[in-house]
Amino acid sequence: MSKTIELIFDFVSPNAYLIWQPLSDLAEKHGATIEITPTFLGGMHKLTGNAPPFIRDAEVKGKNDYAMLEMNRFIKKHGLTKFQMNPKFPFNTITLQRMLIALPPEKRAGFIATLLPAIWEQGLDVTDSETLGKILQDGGFDASALLARTQDPAMKKELIDNTEKAVARGAFGIPTIYIDGEMYFGKERLGQIDEQLSA
Amino acid sequence: MSKTIELIFDFVSPNAYLIWQPLSDLAEKHGATIEITPTFLGGMHKLTGNAPPFIRDAEVKGKNDYAMLEMNRFIKKHGLTKFQMNPKFPFNTITLQRMLIALPPEKRAGFIATLLPAIWEQGLDVTDSETLGKILQDGGFDASALLARTQDPAMKKELIDNTEKAVARGAFGIPTIYIDGEMYFGKERLGQIDEQLSA
Repeated sequence: MSKTIELIFDFVSPNAYLIWQPLSDLAEKHGATIEITPTFLGGMHKLTGNAPPFIRDAEVKGKNDYAMLEMNRFIKKHGLTKFQMNPKFPFNTITLQRMLIALPPEKRAGFIATLLPAIWEQGLDVTDSETLGKILQDGGFDASALLARTQDPAMKKELIDNTEKAVARGAFGIPTIYIDGEMYFGKERLGQIDEQLSA
Repeated sequence: MSKTIELIFDFVSPNAYLIWQPLSDLAEKHGATIEITPTFLGGMHKLTGNAPPFIRDAEVKGKNDYAMLEMNRFIKKHGLTKFQMNPKFPFNTITLQRMLIALPPEKRAGFIATLLPAIWEQGLDVTDSETLGKILQDGGFDASALLARTQDPAMKKELIDNTEKAVARGAFGIPTIYIDGEMYFGKERLGQIDEQLSA
């Protein structure tokens, strides 16, 4: 039976970009399926009292420098050399996350694969709806229909529910991954995920 | 040429216990030498503005629970099932760290291998000098001579210097490891250390 990798996802996290390709490669290696759960990291932070590491660790000498070293090692190891910080980071992803919710589950991976490079390689300003719309159309998505769906109260509610449920299950950041009930947080867990999928 | 793994060490860290055996195994596998740099974690925290995770992350819902999950996974993976939290944690290790300084470098690993199980398996109260002295004598160390050396200003100064130097090189916690100028922090880095030693 094919295994399922549940990915608690928000476009705002650079680590969501960094883990995407290596995790997709692991899924392919093991014939597993990635199931996307769109959540809103800002809401997750409010609910848990967490904050982005670049803020939380800013006053600790050496800690963010080391995080940057590890980020660069990860980029090198996985050949993610096109990555660059988005100039508008931390940007508001609520519209994008509601679009993800509005999509049928089987189209979410394609939506992510279309937008991650735009945001985390080409520096897309996600509030620039014209450029965003063009990228989505080019990727085969009906941008204006999706945009309209983001105002649907059911989409709004589902994003809030997903975020609350993720927190109730122990998530406090992005990316969080569940496989058969086992939780993994962060981009450092690929080795363990590989081991679990091999078992 | 045999490679050197420099270990920035303080007995107070449960992760110093947890990484010791797996790191020693890696050193043996690669014919590498572990070189101990005794530091004082309390001083490192003061100099960097860092604090133990159980304090720093206490107010973030889910974060310490996840750290505990990862600790238990690490314990299981490496067969460290004798580990238990020391009832006096966080205890003051300044005397032990000065003893480490007082020892010739080639005797430090033996000192650590003698005391880590006492502290992190049998719950030794490190302020109980009688029991501590007995354990050290049984391990082949001259406890009273070592204890006397801890009052030597040169030992005190070297511990402070080691701590300041480690912070100047980027360390902010225990365990920190340097191999050929590459820094690794925490017990999660064994895979990367293995890769570097293989290169």
